[in-house]
Amino acid sequence: MKAVVIHAPHDLRVDEIEPQPLGASGVRVRIGAGGICGSDLHYYHNGGFGTVRLKQPMILGHEIAGTVVEVGADVRKVQVGQTVAVNPSRPCEACDYCRRGMQNHCLDMRFYGSAMRFPHVDGGFREQLVCTEEQAVPVAGNVSVSEAAFAEPLSVALHAAGRAGPLLGAKVLIAGSGPIGVLIAAVARRAGAATIVVTDVLEAPLEFARSVGADETVNVALRPGDLDRHQGVKGTFDVVFEASGNGAVMADAMRLLRPRGVLVCVGQGGEAALAISTIVTKEIELRGAFRFHEEFRTAVSFLGDRLIDVGPLLTAVVDADDAREAFELASDKARSMKVQLRF
Amino acid sequence: MKAVVIHAPHDLRVDEIEPQPLGASGVRVRIGAGGICGSDLHYYHNGGFGTVRLKQPMILGHEIAGTVVEVGADVRKVQVGQTVAVNPSRPCEACDYCRRGMQNHCLDMRFYGSAMRFPHVDGGFREQLVCTEEQAVPVAGNVSVSEAAFAEPLSVALHAAGRAGPLLGAKVLIAGSGPIGVLIAAVARRAGAATIVVTDVLEAPLEFARSVGADETVNVALRPGDLDRHQGVKGTFDVVFEASGNGAVMADAMRLLRPRGVLVCVGQGGEAALAISTIVTKEIELRGAFRFHEEFRTAVSFLGDRLIDVGPLLTAVVDADDAREAFELASDKARSMKVQLRF
Amino acid sequence: MKAVVIHAPHDLRVDEIEPQPLGASGVRVRIGAGGICGSDLHYYHNGGFGTVRLKQPMILGHEIAGTVVEVGADVRKVQVGQTVAVNPSRPCEACDYCRRGMQNHCLDMRFYGSAMRFPHVDGGFREQLVCTEEQAVPVAGNVSVSEAAFAEPLSVALHAAGRAGPLLGAKVLIAGSGPIGVLIAAVARRAGAATIVVTDVLEAPLEFARSVGADETVNVALRPGDLDRHQGVKGTFDVVFEASGNGAVMADAMRLLRPRGVLVCVGQGGEAALAISTIVTKEIELRGAFRFHEEFRTAVSFLGDRLIDVGPLLTAVVDADDAREAFELASDKARSMKVQLRF
Amino acid sequence: MKAVVIHAPHDLRVDEIEPQPLGASGVRVRIGAGGICGSDLHYYHNGGFGTVRLKQPMILGHEIAGTVVEVGADVRKVQVGQTVAVNPSRPCEACDYCRRGMQNHCLDMRFYGSAMRFPHVDGGFREQLVCTEEQAVPVAGNVSVSEAAFAEPLSVALHAAGRAGPLLGAKVLIAGSGPIGVLIAAVARRAGAATIVVTDVLEAPLEFARSVGADETVNVALRPGDLDRHQGVKGTFDVVFEASGNGAVMADAMRLLRPRGVLVCVGQGGEAALAISTIVTKEIELRGAFRFHEEFRTAVSFLGDRLIDVGPLLTAVVDADDAREAFELASDKARSMKVQLRF
Repeated sequence: MKAVVIHAPHDLRVDEIEPQPLGASGVRVRIGAGGICGSDLHYYHNGGFGTVRLKQPMILGHEIAGTVVEVGADVRKVQVGQTVAVNPSRPCEACDYCRRGMQNHCLDMRFYGSAMRFPHVDGGFREQLVCTEEQAVPVAGNVSVSEAAFAEPLSVALHAAGRAGPLLGAKVLIAGSGPIGVLIAAVARRAGAATIVVTDVLEAPLEFARSVGADETVNVALRPGDLDRHQGVKGTFDVVFEASGNGAVMADAMRLLRPRGVLVCVGQGGEAALAISTIVTKEIELRGAFRFHEEFRTAVSFLGDRLIDVGPLLTAVVDADDAREAFELASDKARSMKVQLRF
Repeated sequence: MKAVVIHAPHDLRVDEIEPQPLGASGVRVRIGAGGICGSDLHYYHNGGFGTVRLKQPMILGHEIAGTVVEVGADVRKVQVGQTVAVNPSRPCEACDYCRRGMQNHCLDMRFYGSAMRFPHVDGGFREQLVCTEEQAVPVAGNVSVSEAAFAEPLSVALHAAGRAGPLLGAKVLIAGSGPIGVLIAAVARRAGAATIVVTDVLEAPLEFARSVGADETVNVALRPGDLDRHQGVKGTFDVVFEASGNGAVMADAMRLLRPRGVLVCVGQGGEAALAISTIVTKEIELRGAFRFHEEFRTAVSFLGDRLIDVGPLLTAVVDADDAREAFELASDKARSMKVQLRF
Repeated sequence: MKAVVIHAPHDLRVDEIEPQPLGASGVRVRIGAGGICGSDLHYYHNGGFGTVRLKQPMILGHEIAGTVVEVGADVRKVQVGQTVAVNPSRPCEACDYCRRGMQNHCLDMRFYGSAMRFPHVDGGFREQLVCTEEQAVPVAGNVSVSEAAFAEPLSVALHAAGRAGPLLGAKVLIAGSGPIGVLIAAVARRAGAATIVVTDVLEAPLEFARSVGADETVNVALRPGDLDRHQGVKGTFDVVFEASGNGAVMADAMRLLRPRGVLVCVGQGGEAALAISTIVTKEIELRGAFRFHEEFRTAVSFLGDRLIDVGPLLTAVVDADDAREAFELASDKARSMKVQLRF
Repeated sequence: MKAVVIHAPHDLRVDEIEPQPLGASGVRVRIGAGGICGSDLHYYHNGGFGTVRLKQPMILGHEIAGTVVEVGADVRKVQVGQTVAVNPSRPCEACDYCRRGMQNHCLDMRFYGSAMRFPHVDGGFREQLVCTEEQAVPVAGNVSVSEAAFAEPLSVALHAAGRAGPLLGAKVLIAGSGPIGVLIAAVARRAGAATIVVTDVLEAPLEFARSVGADETVNVALRPGDLDRHQGVKGTFDVVFEASGNGAVMADAMRLLRPRGVLVCVGQGGEAALAISTIVTKEIELRGAFRFHEEFRTAVSFLGDRLIDVGPLLTAVVDADDAREAFELASDKARSMKVQLRF
């Protein structure tokens, strides 16, 4: 069967691979949709990011959903024929962090399509995949497989929102209108934010932010001064989400945050030169947000109950055979928001 | 009467000034002790710090205590003859931040001996001072005026500790063994920290950290590798206090913090180049800590109940007439921890 | 001019009163709508509640909105002709609680239409009212005066929700489908609750809960067993709001709460006999929620941005001249949800 | 070998039992000291408490420490000859609560000497015991086996203190001066409480509270009015710990708590009739505290570092052969604080 494999920067191939054995506790899923994420693009363009580098060919993909086609003898909670969102996160459930409820910091994590460990953990861009019944979360009947494949990035957005603390009545700034930034905007609206402002350096992505409920969008490349009206005396935002991965954004974020405001970092940029005296005198709280854990089930339930509508974000579905074209399209932020592969 | 006035970098004079009028709500205090703080030294050596620059002569000093010599007609809570610690913080109690209980972020703060606003707010290095009865906090009979003058830096340490959240059972690293770092060590011990490690680049200050209960001290100039045993897999400290004002310390702090650990920034350094991906993947929480508010009364009560012993920190008491010598001594970290002026 | 005055239980009169002087900082509001609240009904039926008893005639009403008809010389933020929601809460902004941001615990509170202090503080059921500019909060142009009069009960619901902590993804039970219970349901939906169950002992109020988004409603008088499916092993609700004022509900709430679940008490009932061992072994968190403070401005902004729709709750508008009929209607939970007086 | 077995109320016997098999992961401990806890006394006097009733003979005891005499082949962290405190808590580490870091709410908990499940889980009052290496926590060389046996009740006190949130600078009331109340007083002092008041209905236990640092003790049977000076306007305590197991204490606790104060329930009494309107109008936070989890290792480290001194609490050590006499002595609060069995 086919899989989308990254061999080296810009060397993305559709390879033939062997099917996986099922086992007594396995769930075989025929993958219906696989969303291309920013980290997939990093492997494609740069062979990795930061200290995470590709050292061997790896199947990409961790935003996946499909149909259950076979289950092992011990599987009880999932049935053949169900549409499932597949949770790409596989913590060990035995280390100190797992036992403290911080599975996203598992010391022995196996996350799909990640080169963090070696041998790398293969991802889900393949015709069929065997996962555990914990990973295979059935979606409601009204949720399409394309929507189900948004469960993973929606989980990231839910986790980032959770890290900010209560958003009810809050004034929120989101820097970066990529898929994660836009999903955070949707989640912030759902979580009761009073005002949501989203920024980007391109016009096209900001339309998506408006479509999920942002009150105001600012193209900071064209009109950076538009944010000044939110400066007030010492800043007016209660919460800023840094979802651009651009460290330079942080200084401006701290200027616009009110004293004791919270700056959630979810985008993984390089280095940021921060003025410590601003952190100190305004008592800024800066918090990292990394992946997710229990939020995956919340994401699936929100999709089923239409509490979040991800539909507007899907800009293209491309045959897996044309994976390279799909990756190029996904890389063009002026033309696409979320591109999915079809298997 | 005399006052210690900074005119320009290295131009510190003992000037003759007029006494202040008392007024119906005033409390006149004969200053007995005034501790020299790092910010006093910044004015003395550099004429300020960051964007805060000296634009006119200013009386220095905000760690002050003395004896009440006269009270206004409306004063009820303070009596002539009492030893009081003088709270140098005067928030407006009317702005949005004061009304939300965040008086240290007051939009109209008047803090003794600070050039943040213009005209500058004069400080307390003077023979007599008129303050309000809110500011003049009586100390217990067993507290000396020198100890009482520690109420201010102890308040800063209490506030920084409070920003970290509960410390009971925590493993704590304190970077920087100056007066604030050492007081944070004393507070962390009092607050139930299980393990306290303090670092500095000089040997002498570390002795003071040990004297207030630090379990381990590391001279990171001589033996930086000594911290490596606290690295563990992903870091082992629950809380790090950055009290050195050296931005370069932050990267090491983040390496040694466990996932979701808290890094409290209390020292005001310059810029720090932070690896955003570390903040994100370890979900570090970085929190500024600035001055104090209700902690001043707690500090005074702790001194009276001997819950914190500041005695070991006082290394010299110098006549105010010799203020320059006192400032030079206070600047020499190898020879002094806390130097106080006597009036 | 006319005012609705309670003289004794069941002795509600429309009296003629003198207009109030304006003063330099006053805002004169022509009241357009006044919602009848549960506490108004307690005065009407019982002459008070708990230790709060009517000792002299008092103008009722604290859910009020209207049009500004005159402003004092010093007023800057409010203009003649604006529709305003009037905040009935007037904390002193000087006591210890106000200074700590807990204005709802003000030691010198003057709350409209409350017999808590003596002389009682008159309320807003009158043709015209003079308030401060802080109290008069302009509403957006698309908000009717009837909707604006919901700002106060909506503030109570927002405050109760805030006391629960983050609701994003939470499973929530609301006991009591009166105006506060239904508004909490609306707020919980807006705050991202995943599942909302509302209970009552009457059928009619539950329809309103469904209209604002409750996922499930249970008439516990007819079908108490319907809640059993939420029992799970140790309870499944993350948060329960007790909004019925019936202490007997608490035991069932604790049974259905998961360990470390939160039970917010907002309804003021009599005594509740609680099994302490359940509180201990399940580590239940029980939190009172009383009135509101900064939530009033959030409520007004939510109404203007249509983040909460209070429209479905308004079941009748009655001329103030027919106040007694209005109070009788408001007392009949089978026929009404929120009854407003028109002036 | 011998074990102390409860057969029925007042039928406590020293029975002969078979030694347990070791297994590859087992640690065999020769029990040196076993403290008698309030729940042991409940089994002895009443055959249980609440819904927990003795249905078969059960070995009592869960405050135990001893010397490792044999370890299984796979044991790595514990060695023969070490003195260990034995953690009586054995969560499954697999259920939903364990995975969320709430092991004290484990759905499949096996806690030593508890009749909560059937067959009951035998306790540690026996000559030798086989536990896991996770349970056997080595103590520092300067800790006696008697002190080590305090690790368990100290863990309960640490957990209760943790449930209260930060205690640094707090004013604390502890109702009930039994072993848990006194240990909470010691922990509160260590955690930085500014003022600690302890109450009881007997004089003798209050001496122990004073010995661990309580600032004030009140015999509420003799002088209930002594607490009135802490009433203030709306109460002055930040935190109250209910450690008496007497529900009637709760009403007084709520009277003395300041608005938004925290009432931690750790004693398991019967029913408490609570005035809901007090909970609501003062926004009291009532939190249960049940057993402990990660606090056990903290307790052992605190004992080793002398951060808590439990020595003064040990009032008698009795041979296990005289278990009945020991239980009678432990039941007499006027004569004993903590009685331990010696094996």
